[in-house]
Amino acid sequence: MALSRVLNRVRNLPLSMGHARERVALAQVQQDDLGEPFGPFMKTEVPGPISRQLIEELGQIQNSQAVQFFVDYESSHGNYIVDVDGNTMLDLFTQISSVPLGYNHPSMEAALRDPHNMSAFVNRPALSCFPPKDWARRLQSALLSVAPPGLSQVQTMACGTCSVEHGQKALFMNYQRRMRNYEPPTDTDLTSSVMNEAPGSPPLAILSFKGAFHGRTMGALGCSHTRWHHKLDFPAPDWPIASFPALKYPLEDFVRENRAEEDRCLAEVRDKIEMYRRKGVFVAGIIVEPIQAEGGDNHATAHFFQGLQDITEEHEIGLQIDEVQTGCGGTGKFWAFEHWNLRNPPDIVAFSKKMQTGGFYYKNEYEAQEPYRIFNTWVGDPAKVVMLEQVVRVIKEQDLLENTKKTGNYLQSMLLNLQREFPNMLSKARGIGTFCAIDFPSTEVRDKVVLNLKNRGVHLGACGTHSIRLRPTLIFQQHHVDILMDIFQAVLRDFK
Amino acid sequence: MALSRVLNRVRNLPLSMGHARERVALAQVQQDDLGEPFGPFMKTEVPGPISRQLIEELGQIQNSQAVQFFVDYESSHGNYIVDVDGNTMLDLFTQISSVPLGYNHPSMEAALRDPHNMSAFVNRPALSCFPPKDWARRLQSALLSVAPPGLSQVQTMACGTCSVEHGQKALFMNYQRRMRNYEPPTDTDLTSSVMNEAPGSPPLAILSFKGAFHGRTMGALGCSHTRWHHKLDFPAPDWPIASFPALKYPLEDFVRENRAEEDRCLAEVRDKIEMYRRKGVFVAGIIVEPIQAEGGDNHATAHFFQGLQDITEEHEIGLQIDEVQTGCGGTGKFWAFEHWNLRNPPDIVAFSKKMQTGGFYYKNEYEAQEPYRIFNTWVGDPAKVVMLEQVVRVIKEQDLLENTKKTGNYLQSMLLNLQREFPNMLSKARGIGTFCAIDFPSTEVRDKVVLNLKNRGVHLGACGTHSIRLRPTLIFQQHHVDILMDIFQAVLRDFK
Repeated sequence: MALSRVLNRVRNLPLSMGHARERVALAQVQQDDLGEPFGPFMKTEVPGPISRQLIEELGQIQNSQAVQFFVDYESSHGNYIVDVDGNTMLDLFTQISSVPLGYNHPSMEAALRDPHNMSAFVNRPALSCFPPKDWARRLQSALLSVAPPGLSQVQTMACGTCSVEHGQKALFMNYQRRMRNYEPPTDTDLTSSVMNEAPGSPPLAILSFKGAFHGRTMGALGCSHTRWHHKLDFPAPDWPIASFPALKYPLEDFVRENRAEEDRCLAEVRDKIEMYRRKGVFVAGIIVEPIQAEGGDNHATAHFFQGLQDITEEHEIGLQIDEVQTGCGGTGKFWAFEHWNLRNPPDIVAFSKKMQTGGFYYKNEYEAQEPYRIFNTWVGDPAKVVMLEQVVRVIKEQDLLENTKKTGNYLQSMLLNLQREFPNMLSKARGIGTFCAIDFPSTEVRDKVVLNLKNRGVHLGACGTHSIRLRPTLIFQQHHVDILMDIFQAVLRDFK
Repeated sequence: MALSRVLNRVRNLPLSMGHARERVALAQVQQDDLGEPFGPFMKTEVPGPISRQLIEELGQIQNSQAVQFFVDYESSHGNYIVDVDGNTMLDLFTQISSVPLGYNHPSMEAALRDPHNMSAFVNRPALSCFPPKDWARRLQSALLSVAPPGLSQVQTMACGTCSVEHGQKALFMNYQRRMRNYEPPTDTDLTSSVMNEAPGSPPLAILSFKGAFHGRTMGALGCSHTRWHHKLDFPAPDWPIASFPALKYPLEDFVRENRAEEDRCLAEVRDKIEMYRRKGVFVAGIIVEPIQAEGGDNHATAHFFQGLQDITEEHEIGLQIDEVQTGCGGTGKFWAFEHWNLRNPPDIVAFSKKMQTGGFYYKNEYEAQEPYRIFNTWVGDPAKVVMLEQVVRVIKEQDLLENTKKTGNYLQSMLLNLQREFPNMLSKARGIGTFCAIDFPSTEVRDKVVLNLKNRGVHLGACGTHSIRLRPTLIFQQHHVDILMDIFQAVLRDFK
């Protein structure tokens, strides 16, 4: 362990939290190299004076109203984020669920220092035309080695929304290919498409769900239905939107009711497809998140997702799973949809965030038949795939899926305990792996608790109207849960 | 100069091209550090056997039909790209116009090695919520120091298409704010927007041009009208599309005709805005490239762009300039629109490619009024801004705009010479700076010339139906032009 990191630990030792000192013994050996402090350590409220100053400065250049605090990334290690005012917080939001191994992970630093990787960082290729010599090998080791079962093809992209939209394109192309009986397109198809006109630009749609979030460009945003901030003033396609199940908790007490709710939503999906067909708009595919994250961590059971797959198979349309937030291990399986035991693989699986690179996996029949169909200048970035290689290697070597499953079980049981202790404050504790959430009586209470948690050293995110979401790293351990729970309990106890 | 680079030069010395040896003396001192070979050096046809093998391997994972060759980026230096078969080509395509300083530029390598930058490469932040402490400073030095005159605000994004779409959103927001008389939105506005419905999701449009290319996600693609490969099978918004001027060359012989053509197109813009208004679709802005690149390097004069600005001002709508391909110096000015002497700054200027990061500049009144309006998880990447800092520094220190202007003048005169020598093969030589193009009698002839050039060591790109586009780096020099011209001349002379 580097001297600077030892000093960092000592400096950040939370004198007010003697418990942390003992708990560190529970950590796995690998944690020792991460340079984590023993626990949170707060110097100011958040945002502190330096953050506030910087927010004002940034506000001269762009809208800075969404900034929560400025970060000293050099001083952040493992599960702890350090802000510019010297506050050390346990991070359960992880850059909106996009940090798999914590901050400044040694293996990612080593990848950056490795001279063999330098070229990937300084020469960004147009990957679809001029890929680097090791590109197929890197795709294999980073992406195909963790491909969802049954999917052997992958296309990289720069970010989540592009990944979702190019997945939609794959659905559209496949649908139209079938509509043309696998005959080549006519000249009229080709020329009309260039001018946004039918038959080349057909009236196709993607069916999405209320409470879904899939991205911020027009096609992905057209499938997103959470907050007006994302949508107001922007033209949107007239595509069908069905209800997503609103399950009642605890699940074991509402098995029959929840099954009926899921069947109601499945029936609505069928109805909307038919309703749109009658008005001349044809659904080419269904897009769904395994857990509606931005929308409030809304879960559905395997029954619902199996039913969705039945519908797509009956209608010969595609099923696109958006694993941008759920993918890469947070649920204890690499892909969240693996929890459902689907009869067949889904057709498209989009990813980004913790995966470092955007992209989507797809079935063979969804491969573009011509060049330049799924394309842009960069289609991703080898530098990010270099980083993903490290992420995947560490996940496998340290069995971080098993860690996330174990830590997740512990976290869920502790959340349930807390809910029992504060029944008027907390409800609907839920989760898979460490991908957990819990509800509050109102937006106001939720927001205040999030703020109080932050000011006591626990940084986490809100979702939906009155939920918080826990999105720790994959190196989150039992002793981190204990720290979280101590502070959470104190915040709820002191809540006024 | 490192020994390996000296050896690299000796190894690649083109024995068949003695002329290159003398010409190297013309290069500026800075070129000495770039490790460039003396000229192209071909060992096989392109793609060679190793590229062909790798194309087949990649084809098992994804559609690899657009791959021209696999690249040995480690061995590529300055203006020369080296493929996996050991072919050294003078690169005038530069990863679809996205390499400003050539391959493995020492200053970019140094930035990567600088320990102060490591954190930016291994910790990717959610920039709108948790920016790094130096973010405002980096935006200043990398982006605002080269901001288009009159624009002081900037928003980063991951890639070109996201930059264009978020620029469109800024146009939509500003239009609707005016429509609401700057009153806050109603509850109906907010709730309807979430469900893709009016009034919250209004029937707004962006007017675009035939032959335009702006990106690959639905909103940007709705404004793109070049090739069916980009568009076929995908639903598209019904937005107005006007003609872009088709100028006759040489420009000095057709001043009156070209003026009339531009006025015809401007009148069509007005007509389309009105036509759509009558059917209840309101144009919130016009998007235009300074030079339609993908569409065939179509130029218009300052008169046309000044006229477009007049129209946007009359209609109180926005003018969005897409500088994704033209920006960052290729025309001899940092931004191509600076050649037009617009009366006022444009409202939005989108960038990406050579700028390393995507993003857009905008006028103050186009700033979002609320947080989370222009937003996604990453909104760009500090690692790319670190690289852009180097690009901007080198452009300024070495006066690469002046270099590009000078080299461009020389390149243009040589293209005209070549056109005079081969009047049946070449026409419409055109360009600003080194951003040049020339036409061939047909697609077939053009494609064959591009192939023959490549096999003799000059790698360049096609655009439109029968043009080639020259997109060299900003360190492209007179002696590179000479090498290009010698080979171009030989290819045309031998053309059968």
